[in-house]
Amino acid sequence: MAYELFYWPTIQGRGEFVRLALEEAGVDYVDVAREPGGMARMMAAMDGADHPSFAPPFLKADALAMGQVANILLYIGQRHGLAPGDEQGRLWVNQLQLTIADLVTEAHDSHHPIASSLYYEDQRPEAKRRAADFLETRLPKFLDYFEGILGRPEPKDYLLGDQVSYADLSLFQVLEGLRYAFPGTLARIDANYPLLGALRERVAARPRIKAYLASARRLPFNEEGIFRHYPELDGQA
Amino acid sequence: MAYELFYWPTIQGRGEFVRLALEEAGVDYVDVAREPGGMARMMAAMDGADHPSFAPPFLKADALAMGQVANILLYIGQRHGLAPGDEQGRLWVNQLQLTIADLVTEAHDSHHPIASSLYYEDQRPEAKRRAADFLETRLPKFLDYFEGILGRPEPKDYLLGDQVSYADLSLFQVLEGLRYAFPGTLARIDANYPLLGALRERVAARPRIKAYLASARRLPFNEEGIFRHYPELDGQA
Repeated sequence: MAYELFYWPTIQGRGEFVRLALEEAGVDYVDVAREPGGMARMMAAMDGADHPSFAPPFLKADALAMGQVANILLYIGQRHGLAPGDEQGRLWVNQLQLTIADLVTEAHDSHHPIASSLYYEDQRPEAKRRAADFLETRLPKFLDYFEGILGRPEPKDYLLGDQVSYADLSLFQVLEGLRYAFPGTLARIDANYPLLGALRERVAARPRIKAYLASARRLPFNEEGIFRHYPELDGQA
Repeated sequence: MAYELFYWPTIQGRGEFVRLALEEAGVDYVDVAREPGGMARMMAAMDGADHPSFAPPFLKADALAMGQVANILLYIGQRHGLAPGDEQGRLWVNQLQLTIADLVTEAHDSHHPIASSLYYEDQRPEAKRRAADFLETRLPKFLDYFEGILGRPEPKDYLLGDQVSYADLSLFQVLEGLRYAFPGTLARIDANYPLLGALRERVAARPRIKAYLASARRLPFNEEGIFRHYPELDGQA
């Protein structure tokens, strides 16, 4: 049976981290809410299940159901060779993924620091302050951390070394999103992160990911998702 | 060998979710940074390890090291009977824990919506807006979700039924923190959440938790942690 992914049909959003892992794994999946009648099915599944999700994305896999991105990836990673088999390796990839999730939340809140329920336009002054701090303080701290991991003890192809993991796919997605949202800032600091740049290109060139990115299954970035391009937030500091 | 927990020594913070699990498990652990010379050891361990952490807390367990609260709890839960043994059960507890983590982040950001690096006093107007939305919109959504889980298919003692899990301990901690930070709001809405109230009391009465809460190991809440009592944020809506 194909996996069923439940996520908002018009954005990459948090669902994209799951889509990338399913694509790299080369497994069959249905992006339910993008099918006819799919949104109604998703809303019903969110409430009615034995294991309800607070929010999409969630995944059904035969008799199993699970929500929360890092949790879904924990499952996919173990099943499809996108995480190590040993306990320390699994814990480490999960730790990296959760740190990426923290960065994702901060990237989102840079344009929505007050309330997700309000329009960006209703929190623009606050967003300017938060985005400035994000780009000056928080983002470099996160990027330094991941660049450091890629560099120790010597430069590696992926976060774990030679083998790709789902955390690499997620880090690729975050780097793509940041370049979309903050092109000026990223262009200015890119040179500080050669290993992250190489990782981004290496993931994009993987055959299944490359085919996915060129397909209609890959939605474009837009101003409804996590990474939004509002030029006035792309700090000039 | 005793577990070594590394976390800031003067706050409950995110480390408290780990402390509660270790206490309920009844295992020996050292709260490293609260020992003489411990802060220096923690800062060295954070940078120097094979598996560096972006931030505390992190845990050492014999040859294993791991960071990120939900990841540490995944490990402790499996080792010490605070999570089910089957795959669906483990994924479900992890999903619940990650949803609790989202609530924790939102509770923190209610007093720090602009930047963790700034004082509360430097983001007070923004905090008032964010806290109002948190208490009116987000908090009820989270509490409705967990109350619903406790009630389905019929009222349960714990999130999974009869057996306590680490997610119950974390939910207890969040409920305690919210009552500390927002006593007025919680008193007003308490009656809507009888099952959450019963869960909080049930966890507090567990012998090991009760002994811990009465000990000097339990730090008091204060205005340096996640849950802070600023009366002007305790909405009167």
